[in-house]
Amino acid sequence: MSTTSWGIIGPGKIAKKFAAALTLVEGARLGAIASRDAERGKAFAAGFGDPRVYHRYEDLAADASIDAVYIATPHGFHAEHALLCLRQGKAVLCEKPMALSARQVREMVAASREHSAFLMEAMWTRFLPWMINVKRLIAAGSIGTVKYIRADFGFLAPFTPSGRLYDLRLGGGALLDIGIYPLFLCLELFGRPASIVASGVLSPTGSDETCHAVLGFGEGRTAVISSTLACQTSLTAEIAGTEGMIRIPTPWYKNDRYEWCRSGEDLQPVVLEPMVNGFEYQAREVMRCREQGLKESPSLPHVFSLMMAETMDEIRRQLGVTYPTE
Amino acid sequence: MSTTSWGIIGPGKIAKKFAAALTLVEGARLGAIASRDAERGKAFAAGFGDPRVYHRYEDLAADASIDAVYIATPHGFHAEHALLCLRQGKAVLCEKPMALSARQVREMVAASREHSAFLMEAMWTRFLPWMINVKRLIAAGSIGTVKYIRADFGFLAPFTPSGRLYDLRLGGGALLDIGIYPLFLCLELFGRPASIVASGVLSPTGSDETCHAVLGFGEGRTAVISSTLACQTSLTAEIAGTEGMIRIPTPWYKNDRYEWCRSGEDLQPVVLEPMVNGFEYQAREVMRCREQGLKESPSLPHVFSLMMAETMDEIRRQLGVTYPTE
Repeated sequence: MSTTSWGIIGPGKIAKKFAAALTLVEGARLGAIASRDAERGKAFAAGFGDPRVYHRYEDLAADASIDAVYIATPHGFHAEHALLCLRQGKAVLCEKPMALSARQVREMVAASREHSAFLMEAMWTRFLPWMINVKRLIAAGSIGTVKYIRADFGFLAPFTPSGRLYDLRLGGGALLDIGIYPLFLCLELFGRPASIVASGVLSPTGSDETCHAVLGFGEGRTAVISSTLACQTSLTAEIAGTEGMIRIPTPWYKNDRYEWCRSGEDLQPVVLEPMVNGFEYQAREVMRCREQGLKESPSLPHVFSLMMAETMDEIRRQLGVTYPTE
Repeated sequence: MSTTSWGIIGPGKIAKKFAAALTLVEGARLGAIASRDAERGKAFAAGFGDPRVYHRYEDLAADASIDAVYIATPHGFHAEHALLCLRQGKAVLCEKPMALSARQVREMVAASREHSAFLMEAMWTRFLPWMINVKRLIAAGSIGTVKYIRADFGFLAPFTPSGRLYDLRLGGGALLDIGIYPLFLCLELFGRPASIVASGVLSPTGSDETCHAVLGFGEGRTAVISSTLACQTSLTAEIAGTEGMIRIPTPWYKNDRYEWCRSGEDLQPVVLEPMVNGFEYQAREVMRCREQGLKESPSLPHVFSLMMAETMDEIRRQLGVTYPTE
């Protein structure tokens, strides 16, 4: 396997986690980072083997030695920064949500095709062992026909008008930041929703503090997803079928265990390999796809990210949340 | 305490449980039952000390020796049979839901007032130790300000057009039969909903096979309730506040334990007195109220049952479920 030289745009907390994940991935190295804040960039680089530090994102995008770029800026800038890199032919792993709206995602997908540049949403949970195993369990018919999925993601984030979770210019709101996890689970297992009803609570800035949605998928299949910044929720997920049930305990989206049972029996735990970081799986997927010359991941294709964005557009429409730059 | 002589109308499964509960209640005796099916009535009576058996509900309602009547017929007949008894001045404990619609509940409440007859919905969970304890815990501020409640009630009930869970004439549907449990929890803790959005799946008869609703209560408080006949769900409830969380494990609505924690700490179990039957608490409440000459329970007043019925009316309106006799 050839080496993949990674760049990171936006060296915040999530970028740190990704940089740490790269050290776990054979053939990966961190080649450059870009930060508009010189001090911050330097400090970040020092912690990860001193890659090149750019202060302009354009310069990192133009660096011929960089193969793949991880976009870790606030949601409101994903589209802009991903496009910078795609237009330079870089493979792009773009932090979730891929963008603020389906319109932006379409633009990114078009750029990926035009420039033959790989593009994937960093929906890292797609590649975690629990997800692989749960999908296998369901495919084997172990819980019958799945009829109902429920998952929540909530934590208490005190309101700050200019914070990334509340400022609409940054893409603030519960749905895009954390509600996307439950949404992803439902769409991954059930496909495109046939019906969507949503309700929530808006913060003083007009972002969604709380977002609940009920999704219908036909054939009696429904799902309920909840996200909130108003309180910590149980962070659990349930998948119920006609012949059994799967329950993923706290914190469900990154757990290394799950429980399941046939109807009428007690839940039994299944313990998987301990997870070291969690982001290493998606980094490996990007590199595997690049090796094969793919422009999108078969496991997380463009059409899926577009479906997620379209669903979130409709949920936001019902909630009354609009981003100034979407 | 004087003895209360109880009558039961509709000797089905739920009536059996209630009759068994009466044996646990000091001062209670089963005086009569009424069943349109003579054999069934006789068999039921034989199991519970041979009370009088009536074949016409009117005759039980007219029996001067009966103080209180438990209405245990299918939902579609609650209003009719409760009215029979109220008009004879009997105290009525009416199986939940009180009736099919708010209009019917209003009629029952009016009869209760007109005839000075006690009336209470058999929302038995209101009086269970877990509910009393959880309310006390919340009132003490232990989990801060409650922001989010979630509860589900689902089991697999194969479709049968004339079964009580599916036949609209009998009051079929998930919401009225089991969705009322999560709904009750939310309204008991949060009061009247300010907003309701609902979505579900209808069965071939037009009853709700699955019903999800998102309720808003102002001040950032929301709740999500789910009920379904399509699969068994986890039967858990969560109550999340700004400073902590309560979780009631399977089966939440009748559990004798719950868990709670302050934010950032691990859930700790609280084990209550083991529950023997569950219905004995509501029977005692009826008798306590009668002793005090009350016409409604201060803990479960008419206005509360009306609020529940109004909320279910709106949820059904959004789902498209209409009862022929409502």
